[in-house]
Amino acid sequence: MTARGLGIDVGGTNLRAALVELETGAVVALRRHALAGRSPGEVVSVAASLARALGAEPGTTVGVGFAGQLQAGSGVVLNAPNLGWRDVPLGELLSGALGAPVRVANDLSAAAWGEARFGAARGARESLVVFVGTGVGAGLLLGGRLHEGAGGVAGELGHVKVDRPPGTAPRRCGCGMTDCLEAWAGGAAVEARVREAVAEGRAPAPAPGEARSGAGRTDVAARAGEEWALSLWEETAGLLGRAVASAATLLDPGRVVLGGGLLLGNALLYEMVERRIREETSRTAAAHLVVARAALGDEAGVVGAALLGAGR
Amino acid sequence: MTARGLGIDVGGTNLRAALVELETGAVVALRRHALAGRSPGEVVSVAASLARALGAEPGTTVGVGFAGQLQAGSGVVLNAPNLGWRDVPLGELLSGALGAPVRVANDLSAAAWGEARFGAARGARESLVVFVGTGVGAGLLLGGRLHEGAGGVAGELGHVKVDRPPGTAPRRCGCGMTDCLEAWAGGAAVEARVREAVAEGRAPAPAPGEARSGAGRTDVAARAGEEWALSLWEETAGLLGRAVASAATLLDPGRVVLGGGLLLGNALLYEMVERRIREETSRTAAAHLVVARAALGDEAGVVGAALLGAGR
Repeated sequence: MTARGLGIDVGGTNLRAALVELETGAVVALRRHALAGRSPGEVVSVAASLARALGAEPGTTVGVGFAGQLQAGSGVVLNAPNLGWRDVPLGELLSGALGAPVRVANDLSAAAWGEARFGAARGARESLVVFVGTGVGAGLLLGGRLHEGAGGVAGELGHVKVDRPPGTAPRRCGCGMTDCLEAWAGGAAVEARVREAVAEGRAPAPAPGEARSGAGRTDVAARAGEEWALSLWEETAGLLGRAVASAATLLDPGRVVLGGGLLLGNALLYEMVERRIREETSRTAAAHLVVARAALGDEAGVVGAALLGAGR
Repeated sequence: MTARGLGIDVGGTNLRAALVELETGAVVALRRHALAGRSPGEVVSVAASLARALGAEPGTTVGVGFAGQLQAGSGVVLNAPNLGWRDVPLGELLSGALGAPVRVANDLSAAAWGEARFGAARGARESLVVFVGTGVGAGLLLGGRLHEGAGGVAGELGHVKVDRPPGTAPRRCGCGMTDCLEAWAGGAAVEARVREAVAEGRAPAPAPGEARSGAGRTDVAARAGEEWALSLWEETAGLLGRAVASAATLLDPGRVVLGGGLLLGNALLYEMVERRIREETSRTAAAHLVVARAALGDEAGVVGAALLGAGR
């Protein structure tokens, strides 16, 4: 039996844990549990019960991907708006409950590491991994290692500032600032913008009982040539493509991996973003740039966390 | 006597070489020579004669900072528009002429490395070093090492694309693309924009015999509250500040070093750019961000090159 590690992904409402084969990145078993509360005690007790349910043996290494700002290297959560945490020594608490050393990383860094080791950036020494789901973020694989930044908050691509489309009002971001990329082009922002377009009569209302998301409706309508949808997608792809192209120009990563529900779930938007990245990256960096889809889906986070926990 | 290394800085019209104390970064001796021609043979022969003039002993390690696109690690110049070079094995040619192994790096990477080791980023493991002179570029110190990118062209901050000010026509960049940061906010672009403003009657003509540059005139006039100058500086600082803030948000470098003649020679512009960087960097990365002036001036390039050549 090859060595296994435990990977834990802490989101705002769910906690997922998996046993991962460290040689192959294969997920041996995965469990998910809704968080009834959001206290550190609740998170630690859910993590411990999932670890037991998965049959993690004593001494199994543990890695955690966590959506929040971490103090580099220490396992301390400085700030997690989703959970309302400040200055929580999560690594230490989990380590006590699980009886093993715990490595805590940003959730997108962990997912990027999973893609880097066993997904769409496998074998690369450099790559820029961008996730556009509800929010927008990135993980940076540079020189064969995960770049976490001087304060542990590298990769906050969702919080670069953008020029709003002409004639529009500023949009407030969840981070407290205004006109962040995520506030215009993340999945939650797209849903809000579609609702606004319907309310203002610029877009048709969804059919009664229609289950599709605002983004899904937009992708279908844009492919059918509907003006409101095309213009929303052009703005969204323009902002996302510009931000990724600027990052690729700065870093010369050789490889950009695109993941997250908004991009992977909407074929036309993906294609438009990819085209913008190619058009706007510097010629020198674009000449050898590969753009690829993320390959591990929802499992990237637990796989990357398990690897980081084992120092791999 | 402490060990010395030879650092060479190859620009478009001049070649500079220095003997550098590797323990301290002190420049022991420096020579500069105009390039009469631009052929690889001319560059190699000027470099060899400066090395002799400096009294470099046989076996002295050699590092080169070169303004152009390099193939990572090989010392091959892929493309150098300033000199009209393509696919020149500069490292090999110099190594033959100087009788020593030669390490070739991008000129701004070399300068950033000088600032990282003995200048404004001394002791830092992470820093983003931005130079705004005739052009715009950056060097990235990440995880204690120089990040050169998958293809050796990381740091091309001057070639991120920007939104033009409303009502303006696209500007062509030297790289062949349109509306690069450098085409709007580099030193050469500022000179061109001031000339255009004078020609169109939006700015006063320089006094007869006035020696000040367009940028120098703008900084003085903006401090005196002249509208044309304030608006040019606001645009320029807005574009530069946005680009640096976006890079700082992505990388969380902890430290940004600002250098180059346009920034260090114009006090008001520097202040406006610094303010924009603080305003637009994500809160999490801005909370611990230090912004500092480059400390080594013109010597950063030869010092950094000498260190890189010696593997330090």
